[in-house]
Amino acid sequence: GRPLVLIAGPCAIEEEGLTLRIAEFLKRLTSDLGIGLVFKASYDKANRTSVTSFRGPGIEEGLRILERVKRDFDVPVISDVHDLSQVAPAAEVLDILQIPAFLSRQTDLLVAAGETGRVVNVKKGQFLAPWDMRNAVGKIESTGNRQILLTERGASFGYNNLVTDMRSLVIMRETGCPVIFDATHSVQLPGGAGTSSGGQRQYVGALSRAAVATGIDGLFWEVHENPDKALCDGPNSLPLGDVPKMLKEILAIDAIVKESN
Amino acid sequence: GRPLVLIAGPCAIEEEGLTLRIAEFLKRLTSDLGIGLVFKASYDKANRTSVTSFRGPGIEEGLRILERVKRDFDVPVISDVHDLSQVAPAAEVLDILQIPAFLSRQTDLLVAAGETGRVVNVKKGQFLAPWDMRNAVGKIESTGNRQILLTERGASFGYNNLVTDMRSLVIMRETGCPVIFDATHSVQLPGGAGTSSGGQRQYVGALSRAAVATGIDGLFWEVHENPDKALCDGPNSLPLGDVPKMLKEILAIDAIVKESN
Amino acid sequence: GRPLVLIAGPCAIEEEGLTLRIAEFLKRLTSDLGIGLVFKASYDKANRTSVTSFRGPGIEEGLRILERVKRDFDVPVISDVHDLSQVAPAAEVLDILQIPAFLSRQTDLLVAAGETGRVVNVKKGQFLAPWDMRNAVGKIESTGNRQILLTERGASFGYNNLVTDMRSLVIMRETGCPVIFDATHSVQLPGGAGTSSGGQRQYVGALSRAAVATGIDGLFWEVHENPDKALCDGPNSLPLGDVPKMLKEILAIDAIVKESN
Amino acid sequence: GRPLVLIAGPCAIEEEGLTLRIAEFLKRLTSDLGIGLVFKASYDKANRTSVTSFRGPGIEEGLRILERVKRDFDVPVISDVHDLSQVAPAAEVLDILQIPAFLSRQTDLLVAAGETGRVVNVKKGQFLAPWDMRNAVGKIESTGNRQILLTERGASFGYNNLVTDMRSLVIMRETGCPVIFDATHSVQLPGGAGTSSGGQRQYVGALSRAAVATGIDGLFWEVHENPDKALCDGPNSLPLGDVPKMLKEILAIDAIVKESN
Repeated sequence: GRPLVLIAGPCAIEEEGLTLRIAEFLKRLTSDLGIGLVFKASYDKANRTSVTSFRGPGIEEGLRILERVKRDFDVPVISDVHDLSQVAPAAEVLDILQIPAFLSRQTDLLVAAGETGRVVNVKKGQFLAPWDMRNAVGKIESTGNRQILLTERGASFGYNNLVTDMRSLVIMRETGCPVIFDATHSVQLPGGAGTSSGGQRQYVGALSRAAVATGIDGLFWEVHENPDKALCDGPNSLPLGDVPKMLKEILAIDAIVKESN
Repeated sequence: GRPLVLIAGPCAIEEEGLTLRIAEFLKRLTSDLGIGLVFKASYDKANRTSVTSFRGPGIEEGLRILERVKRDFDVPVISDVHDLSQVAPAAEVLDILQIPAFLSRQTDLLVAAGETGRVVNVKKGQFLAPWDMRNAVGKIESTGNRQILLTERGASFGYNNLVTDMRSLVIMRETGCPVIFDATHSVQLPGGAGTSSGGQRQYVGALSRAAVATGIDGLFWEVHENPDKALCDGPNSLPLGDVPKMLKEILAIDAIVKESN
Repeated sequence: GRPLVLIAGPCAIEEEGLTLRIAEFLKRLTSDLGIGLVFKASYDKANRTSVTSFRGPGIEEGLRILERVKRDFDVPVISDVHDLSQVAPAAEVLDILQIPAFLSRQTDLLVAAGETGRVVNVKKGQFLAPWDMRNAVGKIESTGNRQILLTERGASFGYNNLVTDMRSLVIMRETGCPVIFDATHSVQLPGGAGTSSGGQRQYVGALSRAAVATGIDGLFWEVHENPDKALCDGPNSLPLGDVPKMLKEILAIDAIVKESN
Repeated sequence: GRPLVLIAGPCAIEEEGLTLRIAEFLKRLTSDLGIGLVFKASYDKANRTSVTSFRGPGIEEGLRILERVKRDFDVPVISDVHDLSQVAPAAEVLDILQIPAFLSRQTDLLVAAGETGRVVNVKKGQFLAPWDMRNAVGKIESTGNRQILLTERGASFGYNNLVTDMRSLVIMRETGCPVIFDATHSVQLPGGAGTSSGGQRQYVGALSRAAVATGIDGLFWEVHENPDKALCDGPNSLPLGDVPKMLKEILAIDAIVKESN
């Protein structure tokens, strides 16, 4: 197998300078380590727990900043599309269109994303079995687009908790699509903080190592210079300073697994 | 408490004649029993398991038929909205705009529905705790609209299965919103039949009686003249002929519960 | 169907006077209402959360008190057996031997209980599917004993929480065995209070009405004169004073359900 | 951290020759790899799905064979205790007394095992949260015995399915006790085959690598010369011939993780 790709960036585009600094840091690190990077940041958080939550700069300004990241650091960019009306403008800039987990069964959105010809990354709904994802794949493939990524980000486990079933990574790989593990959303405690989602940053390392040890294609991390001050998903984001050591350990595991299989 | 309201109709608008016959049957029955009826049918099934599944007549033709039901039988009508672009046309006809469970955290859709001034019925996501629904209520109330219904339709329970936690009906009533139990979707086995969802019609009666015994405001049933030939959700739909006897038993339970509390 | 039987009493035998007063209260109430009573109390709580939890008077003294209840109030008695060594002495006094949920797959205990010829009540393990209980039935029936009751008491739902799947009551009835709903254990939050189990007494009424509305044979309630001072399972026990009104409402629902089916 | 210990052997003692051959194979392999081995085999399967399932040779003959394994191959042995009466004889032979998952809350059994002074391995109940295990630890430590191992073997996830929450390995390590991952029971589908449990042997490798990548102290595998003919737990047992390659890959991961942390 090919070495792991890192998909990383801040949860939301908070402001341009911060976004560029994070991109620069990640680009240098992944170049040094010899692995691929896809930069991730959201221009709009459409399904926050509460109506008063921070949502981001909006699609126009957000795409402008993502385009700058792409050009300045020569790195592909990924972001969510939440509504049919976003697909066309997003596809002009984004290299990968991401379908949020809650929307992973919305046929029209999957088809519209597929029709752009861009790579489509579908996050597995918290309410889906891993084998159900072949239906998401089928919806996109009906457009002739076969560049599809599938991402695990936890399954509902009682209330306000998610569990990562590591079997799902193996099962989704049977579709032939590259499989990504979104470690930072998998440790969310959805709605667990009343009007926001809690998170368990302390398990991101262990779950990431575990997922990579099963044999996956990419790892998805939300990172921030100061997660405790992040305007979105702080409790489950990684401090940028922790990323280099964690990533090196993970690449060592990835090498072992890919050499044996 | 006021007596139960029945929200019922076929899963999808298959063809006009069938839709009208079902509406006529339900109107006569609920009039005879002295309870309220809201007629439900979908003009578009936007999140079917497979891309080849039947989706319905589309929004324009669907709303025309629902408007005819409304006029011919003097009955309020309810249907799903799946995308921002559907909200305005739907609100011209529908008395109640319904937010599908998968979309119950999509802030823009909740707010747009709230802004129409129509009643909004939010189905609880299979991935949400009952207390999380106060955030959905808050999103709609941010528009000044306080006519909100909350509907239970099962919670994720392992893979391809839902469980109805009857506590959720009591917990959601604490928001002050009327609470509906959607019995026919609660017995779905999502994705359980590979490229479609399975269903357990045989438990609709027991679960409906159970939910009504906890004390609720409305019951939601998908019905069909011949469920085994229905183009959508047949395995969990009720045969129209079973409805009268089931409903009478349920109203007797409803009367006991509402008289004591 | 025959009218509901009530299985009730304090979680543990705390002291003889209290035990007799509860039995007298329940006997009078059920006689007045014309339904059957089985008195329940534990002589030993063998699986408490913590090693320092109260356990009861022990088997010898406990059985002496249960025998007195049986004689003084002419009522059958039920209690748990936790170990092979308890089965023979317990069967001398108890009318029904109860297999705790955690032990519902222990073949030797099921067989030993079956061999006494007493009625055996098996609580469904929190980790079992309702259809798995046919295997428990098979183990007891291998002894020739066919007097078997099956009890629902909640299924594991994430961590420190149980959910009652009302379908399970219908499914277990298909074995031909009478089915009991243990409402007070179904609202436990196992381990939820750190070194003890929490409980949600406020849902006992709604869940009991719901279960009875599905059509069951018996209802199991732990009761106490003052649940907040109970030495065991206080958070989920019912105050004795609430029992008469709750029970009357439940019997009205039971009558409707059994008359129609 | 110290390198991983392997706990392995056949599910049940089927016959002496087979048991000795498996022990010899494992002893040679682990010596070559420079890691510790504990030999596991059950003399009695007390909680099989069906009353007609194979149970093993019984405690007397079983302990005789385990004693021979211990002596012939100079390897510590572990087996389950299911009842108070088994603890004393088992402790004469076994180096580690294992508490089955279903019995992990049975206070008397935990205390009796603790009192023998032997190491006690408690399997986490499928119905327990990882933090609940501190209560099991407390029960054993009440005897003064602090040689306690904790084992993950999956958590209930809907019906007839288990999920391994890899966070649980990290959480249980916070007790200070060594943590074992039982990979072969974690892939059981309990009761999933009607009158026996199904299993998913194909995920043992991925889950084992994942667990080791989180950082654990031991790995538990049931193995057999011919799993498809095993009298117990065949569907989830590993073929002996697959063990060397799988184990080498796992030890490489273990080395990386233990060197970094």
